[in-house]
Amino acid sequence: MLSTMQDAPLSIAQILRHGASVHGDAEVVTWTENGPRRTSYAEVGRRCAQLAHALRGLGVDGDQRVATFMWNNSEHLEAYLGIPAMGAVLHTLNIRLFPEQLIHVANHAEDHVIIVDPSLIPLLAPQLPSLTTVKHIIVTGSSAAGLEAPAGVEVHTYEGLIAEQPTEFDWPELDERSAAAMCYTSGTTGDPKGVVYSHRSIYLHSMQVCMSDGPNLKQGDRALAVVPQFHAMSWGLPYAAFMIGASLIMPDRFLQPAPLAAIIASEKPTFAAAVPTIWQGLHLYLEQNPQDISSMREVLIGGSAVPPALMHAFDNDHNVSVLHAWGMTETSPLGSVARPPLGITGDEMWKYRYSQGRFPASVEARLIDDDGKTVAHDGVSVGELEVRGPWITASYYGVEAADKFNDGWLKTGDVGSITADGFLSLSDRSKDIIKSGGEWISSVDLENAVMGHPDVTEAAVIGIPDEKWDERPLVAVVLRADSATTMAELQEFLSDKIAKWQLPENWAVVQEVPKTSVGKFDKKRLRADYHDGGLDVTRL
Amino acid sequence: MLSTMQDAPLSIAQILRHGASVHGDAEVVTWTENGPRRTSYAEVGRRCAQLAHALRGLGVDGDQRVATFMWNNSEHLEAYLGIPAMGAVLHTLNIRLFPEQLIHVANHAEDHVIIVDPSLIPLLAPQLPSLTTVKHIIVTGSSAAGLEAPAGVEVHTYEGLIAEQPTEFDWPELDERSAAAMCYTSGTTGDPKGVVYSHRSIYLHSMQVCMSDGPNLKQGDRALAVVPQFHAMSWGLPYAAFMIGASLIMPDRFLQPAPLAAIIASEKPTFAAAVPTIWQGLHLYLEQNPQDISSMREVLIGGSAVPPALMHAFDNDHNVSVLHAWGMTETSPLGSVARPPLGITGDEMWKYRYSQGRFPASVEARLIDDDGKTVAHDGVSVGELEVRGPWITASYYGVEAADKFNDGWLKTGDVGSITADGFLSLSDRSKDIIKSGGEWISSVDLENAVMGHPDVTEAAVIGIPDEKWDERPLVAVVLRADSATTMAELQEFLSDKIAKWQLPENWAVVQEVPKTSVGKFDKKRLRADYHDGGLDVTRL
Repeated sequence: MLSTMQDAPLSIAQILRHGASVHGDAEVVTWTENGPRRTSYAEVGRRCAQLAHALRGLGVDGDQRVATFMWNNSEHLEAYLGIPAMGAVLHTLNIRLFPEQLIHVANHAEDHVIIVDPSLIPLLAPQLPSLTTVKHIIVTGSSAAGLEAPAGVEVHTYEGLIAEQPTEFDWPELDERSAAAMCYTSGTTGDPKGVVYSHRSIYLHSMQVCMSDGPNLKQGDRALAVVPQFHAMSWGLPYAAFMIGASLIMPDRFLQPAPLAAIIASEKPTFAAAVPTIWQGLHLYLEQNPQDISSMREVLIGGSAVPPALMHAFDNDHNVSVLHAWGMTETSPLGSVARPPLGITGDEMWKYRYSQGRFPASVEARLIDDDGKTVAHDGVSVGELEVRGPWITASYYGVEAADKFNDGWLKTGDVGSITADGFLSLSDRSKDIIKSGGEWISSVDLENAVMGHPDVTEAAVIGIPDEKWDERPLVAVVLRADSATTMAELQEFLSDKIAKWQLPENWAVVQEVPKTSVGKFDKKRLRADYHDGGLDVTRL
Repeated sequence: MLSTMQDAPLSIAQILRHGASVHGDAEVVTWTENGPRRTSYAEVGRRCAQLAHALRGLGVDGDQRVATFMWNNSEHLEAYLGIPAMGAVLHTLNIRLFPEQLIHVANHAEDHVIIVDPSLIPLLAPQLPSLTTVKHIIVTGSSAAGLEAPAGVEVHTYEGLIAEQPTEFDWPELDERSAAAMCYTSGTTGDPKGVVYSHRSIYLHSMQVCMSDGPNLKQGDRALAVVPQFHAMSWGLPYAAFMIGASLIMPDRFLQPAPLAAIIASEKPTFAAAVPTIWQGLHLYLEQNPQDISSMREVLIGGSAVPPALMHAFDNDHNVSVLHAWGMTETSPLGSVARPPLGITGDEMWKYRYSQGRFPASVEARLIDDDGKTVAHDGVSVGELEVRGPWITASYYGVEAADKFNDGWLKTGDVGSITADGFLSLSDRSKDIIKSGGEWISSVDLENAVMGHPDVTEAAVIGIPDEKWDERPLVAVVLRADSATTMAELQEFLSDKIAKWQLPENWAVVQEVPKTSVGKFDKKRLRADYHDGGLDVTRL
């Protein structure tokens, strides 16, 4: 029996049409050296049409890839909407990739065009001769000064290219399962791998971002998108905001604590999203430079586990609620969000909020143990997290990676437990967990415990070889500039917080914890530093 | 280029699995003569599996139709979830249909099984001999006393049938576009026509019910679903609540003001949904029997236009916010909801709240004038509303109705305007608008103006033939029992509220306004009453 429902495809074009008309007054604010630069969703809609005409003029057709090498700003939003809506595929290049990774990724995706921010030309230009499929470079703004293109590559300015184009475009009706955008994983192990989102997956994910059991983004919200647009689609905020008429505040390249504080003071965001290190930095800055940031109802934090101390600091010192979330490039990226059940208070509430949160109906989760068996959701039993659903990847673009999937489920590489009411608590990445004398020690739990000390600003834990126990934890800590705390004092601080056999005896003070291109602790590099003798280790 | 996303179908089974596990503690409360009867989502999940096994045992296979003839209660919720999840098609029979309509609808849908509430046996039993496809009647509870089945029809009790069944079911993976449920329109004109919802349409609609630009139903909400489950799927509340873990409060057959007040006192709903007449009745009751109903954050009102006086009464007297919405059986049913843009206050805010509201990204709307041309969304220009989207019907089940569709858009039969920021204001049903001397008079505007008088509890306006003006309005009013207000005084009351040429000169006091099976003003019957001389008309 057939349903009588219309066969209306879910599409980026529909998000674009809706946002640019019904929510035409919503704002995009891009931060600049001279403060805010403002435009409206209506104007973004017109410029998306102009961009699409311009790209057609450059020969972009079918599902050709148009890449961006950009900060978060209104032009990047136009690329997010206009490129998929015309049927082409947006490829967000990570500006923090190493040169050889950037070359690999652009060639592998067969990018035809790259839109680049003038400030990023120095990073891109040296690699251009190695990019085999790129035919056009579009520099945002009105000047392409300083960019010498290799033979066969044309250089344009964004404003010059779109200036005379019509402000309406007859967006094609597309199969909702066709490719809309692609993003390569950060590739801490091996080459970056491409995830290709569909119109359907982005549309459904955008709905979830506005759902009450998700981030619950609201019309009228002012959403500060610190998480880069080249990092897991800025967690879906640009599409979700356009879908319901939340305004977007884009920090461009001003991601340091001082300008972020200035952006918050000027633009009064009601919602924000970024990785923990950004908020950690802001919090330290605000201690020296007090400022009210409580316009933010809620800040979404994910990318790596949020230290509980940071959540409490935001709650107590800033009257801002931290919403802990879990996701990955492969999951669009949400994922779970930690909204405690209603009516729970006190320590119980905090336990829920510390967790990585609850999955929505559209993301099924299970835990698999070392024997390949499903583990009970009892809040105690531990296994590797596997997920499935309409916005979870089933494969990687153009590479075999059968070891990343299990009977249609994505293997996340994260290890943890799930409660009966569906709350996920990750103990570690499966490759970071420390195997000491047959028992597992969570590097993340140790890090959180150490970061609870008032003199510690960052702490990363890795396993190092040990003759007796196979592996033992090593803690790399960053101390406050004025701190005289010793490693023995830190160990003592932990003594009533973790089991005795887990107490780390290896410590190293570092200037900063190395980070990956997306701001996560780079433990691969920390391990290499250790093995190269680059860490000054204290053994207690 | 193919996306790498998983091809995970949107399905009722997924809503069921998720709600019954992650939100297993959420409650379903069914009201009874003896107060609340409680069960949990976990238990509903087990009983859904038992119901599915029982139905398989009765031979229900493939997309066979299983009908319900029931009030809102936990068994009806089990039918909502279990029947579509097993791949069969739920058919919600409207218990208020006239006998010949009921017979037509059950035969047309080819219902194989009917689940019936014992209290409704007297309504169903006389029609059973005329139902040509029904093979099984399942009476909820443990007794089928009083039901004599015709030859070839087996009678079962619900509890007897499911008692020994397994509490798990291997829900089949279905095409998301396959039929999940069907509902016939109330058929004020001609035979009722069937709308067939798909798993996809119900799933997407459920997400919208939980979105911040929709009803924004939240996990932890206690949703009082007064709107019947046989009326446009109880506006999607049962599925949405199960999707995110909002508890459901089901009034069963206790829909009168006194028991509704008792339900609210006992169960403290935070959210509720019903047609205006229900709330009007409750409001009058509470004037005599004061009670705090402010546990309800928001009540969703649709089905027909909400009189502004009722919205103000709920705001001022009860501290309950009325959320005005528009939809129809053909639209799943949402539709638009009237959430004013943020920061709007005072009269401007009320203008937004009086309107039928704003459509979400998934429902496109346009207005078409008498010449078939698209009308501007300027808040002034008027046309017939047409809509399209993934949960809007494209046809009716098994009947031709080309006149209801226009190039893939559903013609709603509603007339109104839309503002530039997307807010719909309906002036009337296209068949109810009064054409007086070449100008249009909105029957709804007149009704709202008359109902603003403190002595008027209901008012319905129809057009009656007029030699000079073609048509003129006639107002049928229901006055408070103790009122001595004259028709002339009512006309005088209107004189500064509407244009002089619209002032109605024809008035009739009635005991009550006739209603359709879903509680809307039945203007067809009012017109017939007028033409049969059944109204005592005062001409001023």
